[in-house]
Amino acid sequence: MDHSPFPDIPHQKVSFPDGLALDCGVTLQRLEVAYRTYGTLNAEKNNAVLICHALTGDQYVAEQHPLTGKPGWWNALVGPGKPIDTRRFFVVCANVLGGCMGSTGPRSPRNHETDDAWSVDFPAITIQDMVRAQKKLIDWLGIERLFAVVGGSMGGMQVLAWASMYPDQVFAAVPIATAPYHSAQNIAFHEVGRQAIYTDPDFHDGHYRAHGVIPARGLAVARMTAHITYLSEAALTRKFGRRLQRQTALPSPLFGERFAVESYLEHQGSSFVRRFDANSYIVITRAMDYFDLAADHGGSLAVAFRHTKSRFLLVSFSSDWLFPTAESRTMARALNQVAANVSFVEILSDKGHDAFLLDEPDFHRTVAGFISGAAEAAGLQ
Amino acid sequence: MDHSPFPDIPHQKVSFPDGLALDCGVTLQRLEVAYRTYGTLNAEKNNAVLICHALTGDQYVAEQHPLTGKPGWWNALVGPGKPIDTRRFFVVCANVLGGCMGSTGPRSPRNHETDDAWSVDFPAITIQDMVRAQKKLIDWLGIERLFAVVGGSMGGMQVLAWASMYPDQVFAAVPIATAPYHSAQNIAFHEVGRQAIYTDPDFHDGHYRAHGVIPARGLAVARMTAHITYLSEAALTRKFGRRLQRQTALPSPLFGERFAVESYLEHQGSSFVRRFDANSYIVITRAMDYFDLAADHGGSLAVAFRHTKSRFLLVSFSSDWLFPTAESRTMARALNQVAANVSFVEILSDKGHDAFLLDEPDFHRTVAGFISGAAEAAGLQ
Repeated sequence: MDHSPFPDIPHQKVSFPDGLALDCGVTLQRLEVAYRTYGTLNAEKNNAVLICHALTGDQYVAEQHPLTGKPGWWNALVGPGKPIDTRRFFVVCANVLGGCMGSTGPRSPRNHETDDAWSVDFPAITIQDMVRAQKKLIDWLGIERLFAVVGGSMGGMQVLAWASMYPDQVFAAVPIATAPYHSAQNIAFHEVGRQAIYTDPDFHDGHYRAHGVIPARGLAVARMTAHITYLSEAALTRKFGRRLQRQTALPSPLFGERFAVESYLEHQGSSFVRRFDANSYIVITRAMDYFDLAADHGGSLAVAFRHTKSRFLLVSFSSDWLFPTAESRTMARALNQVAANVSFVEILSDKGHDAFLLDEPDFHRTVAGFISGAAEAAGLQ
Repeated sequence: MDHSPFPDIPHQKVSFPDGLALDCGVTLQRLEVAYRTYGTLNAEKNNAVLICHALTGDQYVAEQHPLTGKPGWWNALVGPGKPIDTRRFFVVCANVLGGCMGSTGPRSPRNHETDDAWSVDFPAITIQDMVRAQKKLIDWLGIERLFAVVGGSMGGMQVLAWASMYPDQVFAAVPIATAPYHSAQNIAFHEVGRQAIYTDPDFHDGHYRAHGVIPARGLAVARMTAHITYLSEAALTRKFGRRLQRQTALPSPLFGERFAVESYLEHQGSSFVRRFDANSYIVITRAMDYFDLAADHGGSLAVAFRHTKSRFLLVSFSSDWLFPTAESRTMARALNQVAANVSFVEILSDKGHDAFLLDEPDFHRTVAGFISGAAEAAGLQ
């Protein structure tokens, strides 16, 4: 496994000299937001769709990734003629605050005076802080109201935060495979992932960059733990099948022998560590763990949305055990309590949480239908 | 966390000078089986109940543990007046082959000539190898037929292997919260646990004992990953509740701050590493991963049980997602195909896989009823 740091590459970004005041009380003196756009903003500036990415996603939604060379992570949903049609909409996606693809995060300098990176001292951030950083980008682009905010998983948490924080500025909201809080089980899985990172001797208490290494093995274990939770049992079985079991004969000694899943894990892990920063992983997973919209509103999720004017499409997937359908149902109930305009669809799929990133025709048809209906309601051509 | 090796303590055990031929082709020259018994073997030697322990269990079923000082792990089920009543039955439990509580395993000497431990070179073992080692103990005790073989989780795999391998010598079989094969998802969780162990610098490629340390952090992460899978989402929420979420204010910097779950994980992890050997953990988890009774019988689970004369009680728990009820149903179907005597009960519980170790009155009543009916059928007083 390659233990050298992954390369700094140039990203399209905008700097905000006034920085950003965070929920934790710290003010970031420097704030940079890296982003990508697709399509054209119309003259009325009312055709903008903000895409919010998930934990390990980034702003390269619908184009080749500059580090991995892979296709955009939501090519299936976003592009010319796709459910979110870039011939019609102006699509924006920003790398989240705390990320490692150009937006301010643990790899960024602490302040204007130094090139010394935050590293492990990067302050605690929340999903709401991520949204505030995106809001600055949207304001800077001159967009007063977003036609839609769309995202899955952690991206869906951002969609919910957007609708709650800026009720007048989100015409349509599409939170997918997500929840208004992170469950105890999800927090526990994140925590073992972080512990795996801390255990790696190359972590150096978070100062690995100063040592010219990355905690590749620990980060790979964290990624693998998470990856299992993204799949369903059926998807895992399909992926590995009997190859997980003994091949022809039992190996001896056992240690040193390899399961198919080991190769898979190593491949997944090593490709991940070449594009993701361990301190970012810690900071962003914690932001997800803190997320609890109801707790932020006196224990009532309905209160979080009391000013909403958005129309919602909630989507869950039947085999998603990380963000089960029940949590989308909780959101639907809260939104109904404040008489919001809500559609809620559970997509039948055996692909687990990952389904939101995959080729799921029912899901894509659902989004396409909702977006086109909302565009009509918004008076968009 | 304490990184010193856990103490070697004396255990009741028996040595078999002829060793044991393993499925992998290696023959162990030295075989020792550590065990505990409760109650009295009757004159007819037909009242013996073999208990098979789970991955991290041991032979101290119904008495204070010599290392941890905790009560026996199945005190709720085994003891005077309990469902498996030690006033009536002679209860035997052996530490599994590959274990670290006195039976031959990675901490044992390689052969008669040396005190040099197997350590990481311990050969691959299977669930069937564990059963063969237990069979030697049972033969040595002069027991021709076991009245019952009972076990949960990996213990249940051993029960199934016993019934399949020695159809004439198991009167009643009680596989609990188990499956006839380890699922892809379970294998994947085991694998990330093992990877976490390998990542710990104190692992020293398995030769940690020679360095006077243990891979405490890696083993703790492995334990924690597994522990999450033992609980249900409901049980985790009950255990941590909101304490997992922010307490009063957001900490800053984030790193160094502690969730309630972190303390819990560290406690669970550090208490575990004081009683369990990392190489044993690797060897035993692999034995579970290899387990696939149907694959061993030309793909037919029914064939595995074609000679069975045992009466079966299969028990699953409704919230167990590690060994879901569907897998017990698969067993019930296979046993019905060979016209075996099968009862199958799904216990309603929200405690997850762990339920088989906990106070579950319905479960205990079910076992008590089955055991007492089987004793009558066996003509036991």
